[in-house]
Amino acid sequence: MVDILHRVGALASPEKVYEALTTVDGLAGWWTEDTDGDSDVGGVIRFRFLPGGFDMKVLEAKAAELVLWEVVDGPEEWIGTRVRFELKRQGDFTIVLFRHEGWKEQVEFMYHCSTKWAVYLMSLKKLAETGKGDPSPRDVQISDWH
Amino acid sequence: MVDILHRVGALASPEKVYEALTTVDGLAGWWTEDTDGDSDVGGVIRFRFLPGGFDMKVLEAKAAELVLWEVVDGPEEWIGTRVRFELKRQGDFTIVLFRHEGWKEQVEFMYHCSTKWAVYLMSLKKLAETGKGDPSPRDVQISDWH
Repeated sequence: MVDILHRVGALASPEKVYEALTTVDGLAGWWTEDTDGDSDVGGVIRFRFLPGGFDMKVLEAKAAELVLWEVVDGPEEWIGTRVRFELKRQGDFTIVLFRHEGWKEQVEFMYHCSTKWAVYLMSLKKLAETGKGDPSPRDVQISDWH
Repeated sequence: MVDILHRVGALASPEKVYEALTTVDGLAGWWTEDTDGDSDVGGVIRFRFLPGGFDMKVLEAKAAELVLWEVVDGPEEWIGTRVRFELKRQGDFTIVLFRHEGWKEQVEFMYHCSTKWAVYLMSLKKLAETGKGDPSPRDVQISDWH
């Protein structure tokens, strides 16, 4: 099993970053505008992009500390993996430790998703700091795979 | 052993991307302006940032295809790891498959470096496409760790 790891820091409160991770409006503000579903624990959130999307079951949500999803539908390589956001305060920053864990193999798609997650996490940082992120379909294109 | 993985695509020729990875001027254009040393195979390239830097031994350089470095000096977690850039043409894009391989543990610094590499690879893409990247000290700040 292999993981994608990232760390970004937002000049915003943990509560603000947590809100961006646990509400449909917040998630639509940095990942994809086409987001709906139930963002409570046990609920499933639907994220849609131009070519397809992901359904995430919310396994854990601990205010201003932790969000943990399980991928219940989406690309084959994603199903069963987990996406974890750990939040902590460090000076003026809220640090987000991100892990997309449990990939079976280091396939080329994993390389792509790692870079793309970094770009979306910079969008989360921007949303928390300025009120406006760069979610799909206004996201930054990184390659031919978008 | 764990790896950082990334994939970006530049709308530029493999030769142009290769030049950005194998010349001191090219490297100074996207990673850090404070770059010097010998970029031939067997040479050591010195990369300096505000807080410190990295010395990379060039292990392999295959025109427009592959660049492989070994970290011979720098932060303890980096020493002995390898940084690999594989290039391939895909339509109008030159795809860069990036791997910083051989980390001993998933320490918090690895999370940081993963995101920071993604941001620098977007700088490499920008340099190859427009002639101007965002190297240190003009790089994008991602957190309190810079």
